[in-house]
Amino acid sequence: MTYKATKITIVSEKLIQSGITRIVEDEGAAGYTVIEGGGKGQHGVRSTDRPKVVGAFGIVKIEVVVADRGVADAIADKVAASYFENYAGIVYLEEVEVLRPKKF
Amino acid sequence: MTYKATKITIVSEKLIQSGITRIVEDEGAAGYTVIEGGGKGQHGVRSTDRPKVVGAFGIVKIEVVVADRGVADAIADKVAASYFENYAGIVYLEEVEVLRPKKF
Amino acid sequence: MTYKATKITIVSEKLIQSGITRIVEDEGAAGYTVIEGGGKGQHGVRSTDRPKVVGAFGIVKIEVVVADRGVADAIADKVAASYFENYAGIVYLEEVEVLRPKKF
Repeated sequence: MTYKATKITIVSEKLIQSGITRIVEDEGAAGYTVIEGGGKGQHGVRSTDRPKVVGAFGIVKIEVVVADRGVADAIADKVAASYFENYAGIVYLEEVEVLRPKKF
Repeated sequence: MTYKATKITIVSEKLIQSGITRIVEDEGAAGYTVIEGGGKGQHGVRSTDRPKVVGAFGIVKIEVVVADRGVADAIADKVAASYFENYAGIVYLEEVEVLRPKKF
Repeated sequence: MTYKATKITIVSEKLIQSGITRIVEDEGAAGYTVIEGGGKGQHGVRSTDRPKVVGAFGIVKIEVVVADRGVADAIADKVAASYFENYAGIVYLEEVEVLRPKKF
């Protein structure tokens, strides 16, 4: 028996990590995961002039799973509106299944 | 041409990584990926008293893709039953598409 | 309001990372993310004789989100055909939702 939930993934420059996780917490998510990585293009690199490759630890991937789709949409909208006009980064949503919805 | 498969993602404290991967192998998965990261809340931090942030390498994210949904459910159920009463951590399932089902 | 997009995930030995990202760029993706990790079995370990565990930074997970499903299929097919006859590795596709399709 599984329950529907939504995963929000945000890939961004590490510089704005704390601002993003503050939005995640303010919207009521029960937790989040942060993975460091590298990338190119909109996947986390500021496009001052043109895309460039960022080393292995220049970007972060923040993942959040929430049971409530409205919370997921609010997180995605606020992160995009607050940061992704001025910083490179992407946000996307996925449907997932969880075993214990009260954890999320 | 793609084939349906299921991805199981487990986020947990690094302390229990080897126990989790043993379940994954015992259930017959063809392989798994382990990524190190940090997090907060149910995403990998033991909640002795209240959620706290864990540094960049305090948690692991283990991912497994299997062609057989029954195997995916068995892995998720056994990991949750064996560990997630006493340790913080989450497990979730996603439908994915693979090119070569015999690899999984 | 969200729009459908496709995420391609490739898990492979680090040795072939630059060849894979060249295919990703040649097919027209707007960017990609690279995460380092470990694993076992088809998830990134060359099976010279039998699967073995690879340390924390032996493999890479490359993720790409594209708005165009045809581009996603082309990337997946070319990576599999170019590398996964001779190297261990997996590729899988997932449907995701994005806020701003022009970024992808």
